[in-house]
Amino acid sequence: MRAGSPQKLIYDFSALKSDASLLGGKGAGLVAMLQLGLPIPPGFTLTTEACHAFYTKNKLPKSLVIELKEAIKRLERKTGRQFGGTKKPLLISIRSGAKVSMPGMMDTILNLGMTDKAAAALADETGDARFAYDTYRRYLSMYGEVVLGVHAAHFEALIETVKADKNYEHDHELSAEDWYDITQSIQKLLIQEGFELPKDPFQQLLDAVKAVFQSWMNPRAISYRKIMDIPDNGGTAVTIQQMVFGNAGDDSATGVAFTRNPSTGEKSFFGEFLMNAQGEDVVAGIRTPLPIEELQKILPAAYRALRRAEHVLERSFRDMQDIEFTIEHGKLFLLQTRSGKRTAQAAIQIAVDLVAEKKISRREAVSRISTQHIQSLLYPQIRPEDKTSIIAKGLAASPGAACGQIVFSPEEANLMLSEKRMERVILVRQETSPEDIEGMALAEGILTARGGMTSHAAVVARGMGKCCIAGCRTLEFRLGKVFLGKHELTSGSWITLDGSSGDVMLGQIPTHIPPPSAAFHTFMSWVDQIARLEVYANADTPQDVMLAKRFGAKGVGLCRTEHMFFEATKLAAMRRMILAKSGQERTQALGTLEKIQKDDFYTLFLALDGLPITIRLLDPPLHEFIPKSKAEMDTVATSLGDPDCISRMEALTEVNPMLGHRGCRLAVSFPEIYSMQVRAIRDAAHMCTKKPLVAIMIPLVSDPQELAHIRALCEKEAFGCPIGAMIEVPRAALLAGQLAKNADFFSFGTNDLTQTTFGLSRDDAAQFLSTYQEQDIFDQDPFCHLDASGVGELMEIAIDRARKQKPRLELGICGEHGGDPASIHLCHTLGLNYVSCSPYRVPGARLAAAHAAMKDNA
Amino acid sequence: MRAGSPQKLIYDFSALKSDASLLGGKGAGLVAMLQLGLPIPPGFTLTTEACHAFYTKNKLPKSLVIELKEAIKRLERKTGRQFGGTKKPLLISIRSGAKVSMPGMMDTILNLGMTDKAAAALADETGDARFAYDTYRRYLSMYGEVVLGVHAAHFEALIETVKADKNYEHDHELSAEDWYDITQSIQKLLIQEGFELPKDPFQQLLDAVKAVFQSWMNPRAISYRKIMDIPDNGGTAVTIQQMVFGNAGDDSATGVAFTRNPSTGEKSFFGEFLMNAQGEDVVAGIRTPLPIEELQKILPAAYRALRRAEHVLERSFRDMQDIEFTIEHGKLFLLQTRSGKRTAQAAIQIAVDLVAEKKISRREAVSRISTQHIQSLLYPQIRPEDKTSIIAKGLAASPGAACGQIVFSPEEANLMLSEKRMERVILVRQETSPEDIEGMALAEGILTARGGMTSHAAVVARGMGKCCIAGCRTLEFRLGKVFLGKHELTSGSWITLDGSSGDVMLGQIPTHIPPPSAAFHTFMSWVDQIARLEVYANADTPQDVMLAKRFGAKGVGLCRTEHMFFEATKLAAMRRMILAKSGQERTQALGTLEKIQKDDFYTLFLALDGLPITIRLLDPPLHEFIPKSKAEMDTVATSLGDPDCISRMEALTEVNPMLGHRGCRLAVSFPEIYSMQVRAIRDAAHMCTKKPLVAIMIPLVSDPQELAHIRALCEKEAFGCPIGAMIEVPRAALLAGQLAKNADFFSFGTNDLTQTTFGLSRDDAAQFLSTYQEQDIFDQDPFCHLDASGVGELMEIAIDRARKQKPRLELGICGEHGGDPASIHLCHTLGLNYVSCSPYRVPGARLAAAHAAMKDNA
Repeated sequence: MRAGSPQKLIYDFSALKSDASLLGGKGAGLVAMLQLGLPIPPGFTLTTEACHAFYTKNKLPKSLVIELKEAIKRLERKTGRQFGGTKKPLLISIRSGAKVSMPGMMDTILNLGMTDKAAAALADETGDARFAYDTYRRYLSMYGEVVLGVHAAHFEALIETVKADKNYEHDHELSAEDWYDITQSIQKLLIQEGFELPKDPFQQLLDAVKAVFQSWMNPRAISYRKIMDIPDNGGTAVTIQQMVFGNAGDDSATGVAFTRNPSTGEKSFFGEFLMNAQGEDVVAGIRTPLPIEELQKILPAAYRALRRAEHVLERSFRDMQDIEFTIEHGKLFLLQTRSGKRTAQAAIQIAVDLVAEKKISRREAVSRISTQHIQSLLYPQIRPEDKTSIIAKGLAASPGAACGQIVFSPEEANLMLSEKRMERVILVRQETSPEDIEGMALAEGILTARGGMTSHAAVVARGMGKCCIAGCRTLEFRLGKVFLGKHELTSGSWITLDGSSGDVMLGQIPTHIPPPSAAFHTFMSWVDQIARLEVYANADTPQDVMLAKRFGAKGVGLCRTEHMFFEATKLAAMRRMILAKSGQERTQALGTLEKIQKDDFYTLFLALDGLPITIRLLDPPLHEFIPKSKAEMDTVATSLGDPDCISRMEALTEVNPMLGHRGCRLAVSFPEIYSMQVRAIRDAAHMCTKKPLVAIMIPLVSDPQELAHIRALCEKEAFGCPIGAMIEVPRAALLAGQLAKNADFFSFGTNDLTQTTFGLSRDDAAQFLSTYQEQDIFDQDPFCHLDASGVGELMEIAIDRARKQKPRLELGICGEHGGDPASIHLCHTLGLNYVSCSPYRVPGARLAAAHAAMKDNA
Repeated sequence: MRAGSPQKLIYDFSALKSDASLLGGKGAGLVAMLQLGLPIPPGFTLTTEACHAFYTKNKLPKSLVIELKEAIKRLERKTGRQFGGTKKPLLISIRSGAKVSMPGMMDTILNLGMTDKAAAALADETGDARFAYDTYRRYLSMYGEVVLGVHAAHFEALIETVKADKNYEHDHELSAEDWYDITQSIQKLLIQEGFELPKDPFQQLLDAVKAVFQSWMNPRAISYRKIMDIPDNGGTAVTIQQMVFGNAGDDSATGVAFTRNPSTGEKSFFGEFLMNAQGEDVVAGIRTPLPIEELQKILPAAYRALRRAEHVLERSFRDMQDIEFTIEHGKLFLLQTRSGKRTAQAAIQIAVDLVAEKKISRREAVSRISTQHIQSLLYPQIRPEDKTSIIAKGLAASPGAACGQIVFSPEEANLMLSEKRMERVILVRQETSPEDIEGMALAEGILTARGGMTSHAAVVARGMGKCCIAGCRTLEFRLGKVFLGKHELTSGSWITLDGSSGDVMLGQIPTHIPPPSAAFHTFMSWVDQIARLEVYANADTPQDVMLAKRFGAKGVGLCRTEHMFFEATKLAAMRRMILAKSGQERTQALGTLEKIQKDDFYTLFLALDGLPITIRLLDPPLHEFIPKSKAEMDTVATSLGDPDCISRMEALTEVNPMLGHRGCRLAVSFPEIYSMQVRAIRDAAHMCTKKPLVAIMIPLVSDPQELAHIRALCEKEAFGCPIGAMIEVPRAALLAGQLAKNADFFSFGTNDLTQTTFGLSRDDAAQFLSTYQEQDIFDQDPFCHLDASGVGELMEIAIDRARKQKPRLELGICGEHGGDPASIHLCHTLGLNYVSCSPYRVPGARLAAAHAAMKDNA
């Protein structure tokens, strides 16, 4: 605000050009419609600046009150009606409207200006007392609810009492007198509740404006913004218009229409309406609306006007519009237009159609589709209307929906599916560990009590494209039982998870996967033309590789060799190697493992069919292959015929395994492991007729000497393939220039880099990171979105130093962030060559890469 | 080496100025003595460049062989004798000598030039056949041992056989014929062993030179250099001189003298000698040498010459000299002079005396004392001669010596000391944890099987100034018993630890602490005048504070509040707080803790008596206060009367506690803990008449918002004291500029910063870090010496950004590195204001700070 001259806070629709950040979406839409010559009720908008001023002063600023008074006067002049008047009373609507549409999140008040006298005047003027008092009682209920905070049920109850007294079944049976009585009972009720309706309707207007401003910060709106990533500081505009009445008689109606089908994207006018009703009746769902085609028969002129408006609006906004309209005595009024919400499928169909219709460019089509849209196409979904019986919420750790019978362990999953002939199971665990992988693979979905968005369960589930809800705090394992809030869970009970929302539901809820359309393929081809960053997939099995190819990955950016060893028979060989008593025993076990690895790589290479693959040598600490409990250790010892190996198993335990004996540190201690792996890769590659493009990647490098040492070790079994390093600890980033001398490429392991940069364990962070977000200390989870200021700067340092050493060094990222749009933007800006993510995130990543490239030219 | 003209590799003593890096210490000393006009046998030196050339070519370079031949010819001319000749044979000594003295580590060969004929010639010339053949057999044994690798015992055995045959008791009873026979038997023995002595004495010389060069890389020498931090690439020079004979008759002698007493530093000539003997007889200890004063009576002229030489040498080298001499037929020859090894006590006494004598400046005195010298003054020591029965070696984790009866747990320590009336115990553990602290405090020393130089045991022991040997690999806990190699250890057995060397000894070995001298105090006052970095101590108790003051700390740089809670009664209150079921229970428990903390701070402040103190708020994860085993948990649950709290204890477990819910993260979740601590500090400060200078330090900060949040929390209980942050994760270093806005000072927590920068857990690193050092991947343990290229760069970034924001921001370091001289140098260079380390390391740190400051002006 400039000192001295208070900023103008209210604009008539005719006074300004359409600017959504100042006028909100609703206000801007009305200005635009006016300019397009479409019929709208006259009015004005209190800007978002007014909202800021309200929050700054914690009251309505004086200048705003003065402007508001003047604006009402202008409206009186324009309409020839009188606000709060006893003749031709002016009634107005007060509606919220932020820059970005937040449907249903904030408040609206209709019919303000109604008083006992104004109602009588309106009855007089229209000769329709029933209409006048119906309108009045609507106003009173809304004011009571929105401004005074009295629950709507109280007002409903008053109506129900009258209906019961008079033996009515439907509202339309209520007479003018009945509605009049109700307006009086509502006023009495408010007084009983300790409220008094201000006599002056302008005071009521001030209260209403205040209430709408305040609704910006209601918990519903706040959490909606959090989920939708809308900033909290935008504020809402308030649009005030003369009321038009869809409930003015049988030549009146109100409705909602879409210029295209919002479910399918089909190019056909779509909508519904109610005769003789006001807007909230459509929302309330008391009466069933009619399909929009019916309007053509009932009010053909209004219908024609609506279709004309619809054409004008879509042409003007070059997007599918969601239009609110009211017909008063046969005349059409448009109340709102905005880009319509749509399903993912519809979004793509519409974008592709609009390009075909030459309304938008391919680039614009690409810019309009969000990565969430794309991702949501790939997962099973639950229709919102089927979401009954939600009994808990957790972190939406891996999207999609799943339904199955509860099991509590991988063994139980196996048993249930094989012997008990269950068809689908959901694995419910305190948390998961690598030993649960087989169980996770068998399950439809995973629910855990602990762990955050990048806990083991979440990461593996996303990798498998499997639904997962993690960190479900109300899930408790106690005294050998499992509780979900007040519900005790038992094996075999049905449960349904929505991994896209974090909702846990009791029972079997139907799920469905929409098949990808032709439009989808067309669209993704445009995406790839625009993107500069290449998108690879993280894949460990031929199944993963097939998925990666199906989702358009350029190849495999990260193949984790350890995942090959968690299968039961392979795990046994791995354990024999780890627990070998002598060099000879170890060599023997390594021989077995080499055969296994060679076979695994061979089938992987066949699936790749010539696409490139980057294979990371063994990374996890050896104790990850060893069971944790004494009983399981005993079993292993027995199966190995080596009772002494228990102490060797115990000795492998680490205090901080994340920072322990893992990655290439294993190969410094046990060089034979990496040698075996490189030989297996080489020999498998030799077996292929179509030679795979293999690169070998060294994990957890922290020192140039170390990398030189490991590189030399690998090159002993060499076959000339590129050898690169993961940059996943800060020291590697800082020494990237020196590391580059011995690396053919770098891949940032941003999961570990985030852990070490923050000093934050992703396995343990869930329990306190949420507090950080609640208290606005962190505005995001650094394991979901790359931290630009810390981790990002280390990456920048590394890239800069690496490229100084080797200007054409290939640089990529293969952490979980590789599938996150915001992180992909950062990777693009930092100048990486590629990202690699789990196959299911590949299409979204391709789109995010295109979005990032478009920003360069914007 | 320059191409074309081979570099000169041999210099006569007269040909060059004294340069130890080229000629080795021995060669340089001889050159200097010649220039001072002191009597030395003529000769020449093969340079360290010659040694490099040998290692580069893996053989003696041709040019060296040619130069050697010429040098021998020059020596023949100078001495008028003939090398390998049958008349007046020239005998020579071949001695190693590196730049930095490595006494006894490399090889020497005396009397080379001896052959059957030369021996006969020498017998003829001297008329002393016994001398000639004694000299010959000495040569053969040395050649056999050094060049051919035949164990000396074989030669000893031949002599013993003769003595037994002839019924002799002492060597001097052996006749010329006996020695002749022995020279023949040695030659036969060598042939039997498959060796043939080259006929040509020049070939023998080449072999001897080669052997001496090779001895640079013998394991003994390598490990000596590792311990003494001497680089491996220096190489050794080889000095060749005409032999002079201390064994030429009763007017001949050989000995060693020091210009001052090397044990006490007293200014009195000190030494010992053997009549009619060669140098190695002194070393071998077969005959007991006489004190140097006796020489005055036996050979007064030679004694006078020696005293003259001693004066000249000390005046010239301005340091106490260690002189080797030989007297041949009454004539004195000096064979070597070097700065004498001395005890720490002597080093300081000599330095202070030399200043008083105006021979050196105070700065030079300070530069001559090593931090090891200073530190070794503070700890109990074992006299080397008492070190019998070493049964194992571990890491020298905390210096000093300790002797006591073995206990295996803190409980046992308590029991043994109280009920069984043992006086001193040594705690022997697999590894230690915070719960062992009381037991560690009770014990004289700690021995652990696991953990490195910065494991819990090592860090706490150094903090307590208590002897500790960690990571003793041969210490095994198996089947309920404890073994140290082949010895089974039982409770109550006596054991002695030398924490300065890592030696573990059976039985009671006496230890002693030398009291600090007046010279020490004088010396340390000079140190503090030179140093720029200030030295604070880490101290948690009044006892620590008293120690800190005694050792000259400027105040307390790190007071860890959590250590106050590990005492039994306090721990109970802490557990009640952690396991509280309700807010009310927590408040109650916090109330108890607040009283305890206030009292603790009060006594701490009294001990400080006005010195400054920086108090770190609670840092460790809460589970550190909770027992680990099920049985102990049960006990806690019973004592709290809350059986349900077991699940709460279990829920506190973390996968990577180092990266978990700790530091200021605790205060985000449980703000009441920090509030309580700040109130306790404030109220304790108010109780003091002499106001303590308190600063509050926030641990594990990773984000500016987080610091602002915690600062605001602390300021609610404010009393205007400075509030600072620990920089101990990379992100804090990177964002130091922003953090500085809300910090009055920074302290680098380099232990954690090293862990996170490397991605390396110090608790787990011991098992593989040694492999890294063995394989020369890491040349040092980054937990002992600050890693300049990684951690150091992050510190540099942080300092730069912080000082840009606040140019006068106080910056320090409080990790274990704060006591390490190399790290202190780095801290000085980086421009820190202070270091803080455990009290026992304070004097060494003060000296290291002075050394660093002197380098600035050098």
